[in-house]
Amino acid sequence: MKEEKIVQDLLAKDFHPKNVYFVACGGSLLAQYPAFYLIQREGKGIDAQMITSNEFVHATPKALDENSIAVFCSLSGTPETMVATEVAKNAGAITIAYCHDPNANMSKIADYHVPFNTIFNPETKYMESNAAPILKLAFEILSAFDGYEYLNDANAAFDMLQDVVNEAVRYIEPRAQEFARSHKDDKIIVPLAGGPALGVGYGFSICSLMEMQWVHAPLINTGEFFHGPFEIVDRTTPFVLFMSDGRNRSNDERAKKFLDEYADRVTVLDAKELYINQFPASVCEFFNHFVFDAAQRRLLSALGDIRKHDPMTRRYMWHVEY
Amino acid sequence: MKEEKIVQDLLAKDFHPKNVYFVACGGSLLAQYPAFYLIQREGKGIDAQMITSNEFVHATPKALDENSIAVFCSLSGTPETMVATEVAKNAGAITIAYCHDPNANMSKIADYHVPFNTIFNPETKYMESNAAPILKLAFEILSAFDGYEYLNDANAAFDMLQDVVNEAVRYIEPRAQEFARSHKDDKIIVPLAGGPALGVGYGFSICSLMEMQWVHAPLINTGEFFHGPFEIVDRTTPFVLFMSDGRNRSNDERAKKFLDEYADRVTVLDAKELYINQFPASVCEFFNHFVFDAAQRRLLSALGDIRKHDPMTRRYMWHVEY
Repeated sequence: MKEEKIVQDLLAKDFHPKNVYFVACGGSLLAQYPAFYLIQREGKGIDAQMITSNEFVHATPKALDENSIAVFCSLSGTPETMVATEVAKNAGAITIAYCHDPNANMSKIADYHVPFNTIFNPETKYMESNAAPILKLAFEILSAFDGYEYLNDANAAFDMLQDVVNEAVRYIEPRAQEFARSHKDDKIIVPLAGGPALGVGYGFSICSLMEMQWVHAPLINTGEFFHGPFEIVDRTTPFVLFMSDGRNRSNDERAKKFLDEYADRVTVLDAKELYINQFPASVCEFFNHFVFDAAQRRLLSALGDIRKHDPMTRRYMWHVEY
Repeated sequence: MKEEKIVQDLLAKDFHPKNVYFVACGGSLLAQYPAFYLIQREGKGIDAQMITSNEFVHATPKALDENSIAVFCSLSGTPETMVATEVAKNAGAITIAYCHDPNANMSKIADYHVPFNTIFNPETKYMESNAAPILKLAFEILSAFDGYEYLNDANAAFDMLQDVVNEAVRYIEPRAQEFARSHKDDKIIVPLAGGPALGVGYGFSICSLMEMQWVHAPLINTGEFFHGPFEIVDRTTPFVLFMSDGRNRSNDERAKKFLDEYADRVTVLDAKELYINQFPASVCEFFNHFVFDAAQRRLLSALGDIRKHDPMTRRYMWHVEY
């Protein structure tokens, strides 16, 4: 069921959420970050939490009840996320499962099931995958239940999303090749991201680099950079800075200014150069995730090519029990 | 003013919080994690968020209002945290500043000021520093306003905290020397932690290793380990696993089982060996932070000695503008 229909259905049932839980693992968790960030910062009477599935199962928040919405995401129906869906269902929460597989147990257990396609398939559009529809759900929830005023602008942004992302990909392509050439032999690459881009920075770290290239990638929040971790900056360590547009930009710019002075190997992904400002200004910040996601996928792909390390190569997943 | 007094004062004013924001930077932010985790998981009608100061300033949550408590922490009155205190004060929230310096602006602005001593001074007891009193504040808030039933047990735990920590330190000392010898030349060390130990894992990563030893330290949440980052496991990379006691232990144990099979350089800090079970069972989980904090400080200190890298040595902080 589509997001606006789900929210209409909840309105018809006279349901009013007090909080929304975003629950998943790994890449499916980071896909929920834009929606979590939107509600965490813009919700007046609705709270949001984002928790990895197994922690949600074992140390379930006591505030989870029949006034909660719990959103779950998994491509194939990850066992931990399936159990998490059951936990929320048993607590009386409204459960919404984003899952590719309609036969996965989490799809069947949840009150609402939204199928999606993997963004790893180059044919998949962002609105057919997970992160964009879940963000749309968050906009619909805030609009219906919390007086949020920019839903129309958000919908306009979703309408142009694929075109903007396509432009971002065209822009980044030659830079991705250059990135791959200069980072071919690195065993560690340090991503920096903050605010609306923290989720995609996390994905670049744990999925693209650690999982898919076996490259160590200690993610640093740009808001935390100067409170400890910047001491590792030197002339040889490579950094990738996600410079977002919006209210967090000054944090990202401050990190850039420092890296410009004290580091020699810095790749800047600037949302402004990735066409972010085509989105309506009122909601622009919440779309940073997507232009960065498209860009970092090109970095990953180019890096995989030059290292002759296919991003789908695993040493443990699909091969051993764990 | 002490925590129970603050909460009595709020009760006398007929104040009832709907949410608590924990706001700080770096080491002072991680010191708030146990309190955040307690309210996030145990609060029924009170929500918690933990946000780095500059993000709180620039993208302030709209739910921050006169029904909020905002807790700030800084040793010396970090400028970003001072501004964050102003933001919360202007929004009408109850503001509580944990700050060593009574003359720092944040101490003067806040409705309540609690002084503390740095835990880096070996004379300082945990109850005189920041993390334990802030956790006590969280227990008092839940007890006074949310029907939390184990405040007496928590107080008993605080009473024995220093003795337990001292035992943990005695236990870890020879192991810390061994850790230092075998990690003397490592440029990267990977910490794993989850649930109630995520904050101290973050501190070991960004403060102890990155800031104080200039060693790269990509923190992995044990609940996320198998959803991507475990692909970097090999026979040469060193890991430090914080194995907590409580509801998250099965996640930590699962990580240990995998590392036992596929990694050769694993240091396990087990809360059970660090005397965690001396605390009352009802609240034991929320005290993992402190035995781990004491233990990781011994690892840091031994590592600094053997590397001849004093933990107070900085290349940027105190030396350059940023």
